[in-house]
Amino acid sequence: MSAAVPSEYLDLLQKPTFAHLTTLMPDGSPQVSPVWCDFDGTHVVINSAKGRQKDRNMRRDPRVALALSDPENPYRYLQVRGKIVEVTETGADAHIDKLSQKYLGKAYPFRQPGEVRVIYRVEPEHVSGSGN
Amino acid sequence: MSAAVPSEYLDLLQKPTFAHLTTLMPDGSPQVSPVWCDFDGTHVVINSAKGRQKDRNMRRDPRVALALSDPENPYRYLQVRGKIVEVTETGADAHIDKLSQKYLGKAYPFRQPGEVRVIYRVEPEHVSGSGN
Repeated sequence: MSAAVPSEYLDLLQKPTFAHLTTLMPDGSPQVSPVWCDFDGTHVVINSAKGRQKDRNMRRDPRVALALSDPENPYRYLQVRGKIVEVTETGADAHIDKLSQKYLGKAYPFRQPGEVRVIYRVEPEHVSGSGN
Repeated sequence: MSAAVPSEYLDLLQKPTFAHLTTLMPDGSPQVSPVWCDFDGTHVVINSAKGRQKDRNMRRDPRVALALSDPENPYRYLQVRGKIVEVTETGADAHIDKLSQKYLGKAYPFRQPGEVRVIYRVEPEHVSGSGN
């Protein structure tokens, strides 16, 4: 059952807020790291590169969690727990440029030779906001 | 096997950097939220209140993950994966005041009636830093 993001926290998905994304390792233990993200109106959308730890984790176990802390007020944050409902390479190169425009104001400058970008769509199942 | 925090990232544990802490829900899915923390030279030390979701999670499953992103440079961060090796109420009231001094510059102002503070010590098992 998909959960909606409360309107008073939507700004955190719109402005360049880092999401701390947790994925699960093969033994079920957690791994967390900061990522860029955006929002398609329903899903939180992430972009990574094929073969990275978080890519392997999300393909094996779709359960993830995200926290987006307001860069202007760390006591205001959005928590999302959900699952990956789509993993695709289609459009992923254009999408990392779009995210880079959002966060850096320019096309993605960190591409590595042979890097294959991947889009992951997170369906929110439990959403809560804290602070105001 | 305990892992050491690289000296070039120790500042992230010393200055008032928020840690994004992941704990595991009863079904093994992850939950992540920002917390205050400090460091005793070996363990990352967290403080929460008895009965909260993260308290219940850490008592049931000691596996946690933390990411500390530099507030001055979000592309520089420390990742810690490890386990809770101590849960204690002893000294936890004084410890939340110490953390509050670090993060807010004053004694802890958010105490609730009947709140029981708890200290959790995280033994780092896998540590990595990114960015410089």
